[in-house]
Amino acid sequence: MMASNQVFNITERKTSVGDLVELVGMTHKNHIFILENEQILHTHRGIIYHNDLIDVKWGSQIFSHNGSPFFILQPSLENILKNLPRSTQILYPKDIGYILMKMGIGPGTRVIEAGTGSGAFTTALAYFIGCNGEIYSYEMRTQMQANARKNLSRFNLLGRVLLKTKDIADGFDETDVDAIFLDLPNPFDYIEKVRESLKKGGHFGCILPSANQVCKLLAVLKTHDFAFIDVVEILLRHYKDDSERFRPVDRMVAHTGFLIFARPVIINHE
Amino acid sequence: MMASNQVFNITERKTSVGDLVELVGMTHKNHIFILENEQILHTHRGIIYHNDLIDVKWGSQIFSHNGSPFFILQPSLENILKNLPRSTQILYPKDIGYILMKMGIGPGTRVIEAGTGSGAFTTALAYFIGCNGEIYSYEMRTQMQANARKNLSRFNLLGRVLLKTKDIADGFDETDVDAIFLDLPNPFDYIEKVRESLKKGGHFGCILPSANQVCKLLAVLKTHDFAFIDVVEILLRHYKDDSERFRPVDRMVAHTGFLIFARPVIINHE
Amino acid sequence: MMASNQVFNITERKTSVGDLVELVGMTHKNHIFILENEQILHTHRGIIYHNDLIDVKWGSQIFSHNGSPFFILQPSLENILKNLPRSTQILYPKDIGYILMKMGIGPGTRVIEAGTGSGAFTTALAYFIGCNGEIYSYEMRTQMQANARKNLSRFNLLGRVLLKTKDIADGFDETDVDAIFLDLPNPFDYIEKVRESLKKGGHFGCILPSANQVCKLLAVLKTHDFAFIDVVEILLRHYKDDSERFRPVDRMVAHTGFLIFARPVIINHE
Amino acid sequence: MMASNQVFNITERKTSVGDLVELVGMTHKNHIFILENEQILHTHRGIIYHNDLIDVKWGSQIFSHNGSPFFILQPSLENILKNLPRSTQILYPKDIGYILMKMGIGPGTRVIEAGTGSGAFTTALAYFIGCNGEIYSYEMRTQMQANARKNLSRFNLLGRVLLKTKDIADGFDETDVDAIFLDLPNPFDYIEKVRESLKKGGHFGCILPSANQVCKLLAVLKTHDFAFIDVVEILLRHYKDDSERFRPVDRMVAHTGFLIFARPVIINHE
Repeated sequence: MMASNQVFNITERKTSVGDLVELVGMTHKNHIFILENEQILHTHRGIIYHNDLIDVKWGSQIFSHNGSPFFILQPSLENILKNLPRSTQILYPKDIGYILMKMGIGPGTRVIEAGTGSGAFTTALAYFIGCNGEIYSYEMRTQMQANARKNLSRFNLLGRVLLKTKDIADGFDETDVDAIFLDLPNPFDYIEKVRESLKKGGHFGCILPSANQVCKLLAVLKTHDFAFIDVVEILLRHYKDDSERFRPVDRMVAHTGFLIFARPVIINHE
Repeated sequence: MMASNQVFNITERKTSVGDLVELVGMTHKNHIFILENEQILHTHRGIIYHNDLIDVKWGSQIFSHNGSPFFILQPSLENILKNLPRSTQILYPKDIGYILMKMGIGPGTRVIEAGTGSGAFTTALAYFIGCNGEIYSYEMRTQMQANARKNLSRFNLLGRVLLKTKDIADGFDETDVDAIFLDLPNPFDYIEKVRESLKKGGHFGCILPSANQVCKLLAVLKTHDFAFIDVVEILLRHYKDDSERFRPVDRMVAHTGFLIFARPVIINHE
Repeated sequence: MMASNQVFNITERKTSVGDLVELVGMTHKNHIFILENEQILHTHRGIIYHNDLIDVKWGSQIFSHNGSPFFILQPSLENILKNLPRSTQILYPKDIGYILMKMGIGPGTRVIEAGTGSGAFTTALAYFIGCNGEIYSYEMRTQMQANARKNLSRFNLLGRVLLKTKDIADGFDETDVDAIFLDLPNPFDYIEKVRESLKKGGHFGCILPSANQVCKLLAVLKTHDFAFIDVVEILLRHYKDDSERFRPVDRMVAHTGFLIFARPVIINHE
Repeated sequence: MMASNQVFNITERKTSVGDLVELVGMTHKNHIFILENEQILHTHRGIIYHNDLIDVKWGSQIFSHNGSPFFILQPSLENILKNLPRSTQILYPKDIGYILMKMGIGPGTRVIEAGTGSGAFTTALAYFIGCNGEIYSYEMRTQMQANARKNLSRFNLLGRVLLKTKDIADGFDETDVDAIFLDLPNPFDYIEKVRESLKKGGHFGCILPSANQVCKLLAVLKTHDFAFIDVVEILLRHYKDDSERFRPVDRMVAHTGFLIFARPVIINHE
């Protein structure tokens, strides 16, 4: 069974009832679910009985009723995020990884996030802040929030997150948090509220799809004593894993969003 | 003073003796050091007395003896890595962030790394695994290791890392670790050893500058029952933060290395 | 009617029978064809009578029988290439443009090309060398050659091209040409033949999809007295033309091929 | 001697007095000049006597007085542009090549360009339109124009270009040209003038460094009956030519400008 401080990562060599597992077929199509007695999984490549997956070695190859091969794995964070039931665009791993590094979001960090959306970034944040950190995640749409709650609960991460239904135009409840990340179309409208709740020298970040939004945000940040402004974009290029014909794959994601980072400072304006 | 479980992140609003601080001047040139009574910092823009930096609010603007402005900040992880005293090429934040995400390296993870080098990636790993994880870092060059030890100690992270002087051609001492990352020119020579120490379904990763090295590694991974092989490269593009003339900066880093990821699985070869 | 020295570009303000025209609908789906009396064009958005397209101003909006709007244009070179009937992968405009610049292929140039393939690059070459240049295009597959001949003829460019059916392993018939471009999987097998037919200091170029092929070619070029070797790749990123939400489009072509350029020189090897 | 219809490309196998030559040293540093009797070239790697360069085979290796090796080549268009004496930022070959393809600028084309600047793009245009095309190049700064005239004259291309000193706010003198390219910071101010002089269905293009300028231009193009608007950027990545360690070079040009293309059409606005 899943130990509380290890969320969905399991240190046992063999699977048990209650484990979160990932089953990956030939075309890398994957299924992430919790192992239960007597349950059945229906895939495009045949039926799989949960009981056949219990007490087997992680990393093993198993077969569906019609002989299609699968691997049984402890789910990777990347695949968990990609497979999240969702109704909104989610942040990509390439962007999340850089955000963590840039904003120093790790074990013990206290972070405000808005909006929660499908909870993909919330899940990543909760994973990385560990059991000593805390996430305050704001979302006005209660249906979205309910969905995010379900996702977090499934990955044993809900204990690290406070899900809040509140209009951030009225401000955040917390103060002196280490970092605030806004995944909203109009972050420029909340910069004063960010300044009130983010500790001085803390990390503000957001993602915006269009250049017009970035320009609007930059203008506001500069009039609100934010320094160390950094605007970047991250391009991820996949290669074919063919040692005889090594080359990039034919197509790629060309744009997810511009990432903007800044830190509030104290300036004496006379 | 720095609390042990928070390493260099400080929750206090004001600076104290013993804090790791970052002083950033106008051109973003930064200085990272530990606050000590009666010490003096010499910068290109004038002299700064440590005593003037003690018991001030984080994020404040302070001035050198000749009036040059600086901000005093809790150092960001990114800047800590960039400013590490080093004698080797280090991993870039853009690559580290993606590696963490892809390999799921977070609180509680047990990770083998080789070689230690200047300890930049070791520092990042130690930061993200938190107080419950563990890093086993191998390095043959004792002088490099001594330098890495000093760096880790300075950031209060040495307690999370076991620095080892051992030829990994003889294998790693640990077994069933969650992840192994090799930052070496010839990872293909150690794949059997990786398989012995990495738990099944765990995460293997490495970075290699040339296509030739990648091709050699791909061939070896496939004959050693590694699956889910992924080869990527990450491009980071910075933009000018000018809201009236928003555009990418003129030049960028075009290549740091190819990142290769794979997971060992159990296949029945009859 | 089309004037011989202007190929498919027409200087008249109005369309005439015999003109090569491009009809572009709302979703940028285009049709390139020759205007003929009494002909009918069937599109996904209705029927269009050629007679309605004769003697109208270039650039006009016309409508199909069911009211769908189209623009009638002199076809652009880019669209001609994109719409070429073809059975092979063709060179992209982004690559062709750079090849022309790099190899100085313009009016009056004599160029060898192999293989002809669908004739897309041949068409571009023939367009740019003008009426004083000459293209020698080699292709072993007679069916491909017949198709290329038809394409070139349609664009009034056949007079500038000598289509040859000959195995280039036996060498090229021409000598002292200005440039040779190979669009073949194994250019490294023909480098001696290239040296025999390319003038000293002339321009050799080729496109190769994989890094392995490039490495093989580089090794051969260096042992055959080629200098000024240049390997590049070109990435083209499209943006949405929305002035309120300016941003890159979501996906892009990540790889067409590596372009390799080199010039044969005379070195005294004692 | 240079034949008039071949500009700086020479078909002879050996050099003659009056030829435009390119001398390239070990580090690819090049010198482009006209061969003259009794002249001397001073380089960082020694003195070279023109007389030693006359009547030698193109592509030969020659040596300076102190033994440094050079190759003597017919100058490539790319190098001619790169080495142009200039006082302004010039268009890069990567961008020029795509502009030619996209706008169909080749033999026989009539093109308006503004401003002339240092004449680099003018040189490329004049090269590609051949002896039957015509370039009308506008520039208000007479000193710049004089410099461009000198450059064009040196490459035997002046006969294809009409250099004009006129404020394009008053319109262009020509009508029904095939293409208009604006390399100016404020193309949006001249779109009506562009429409007056560009044939319907012709090609308009420009290059702009910032997103803000692009947004402004897009808005104007749409209210002036331009269709087929395309905004792109081109990234060129160089690779090391090492067959044993094939990899991209470390740094690259990240941005030269956004390229915007559009075609004027006739729309019935009731």
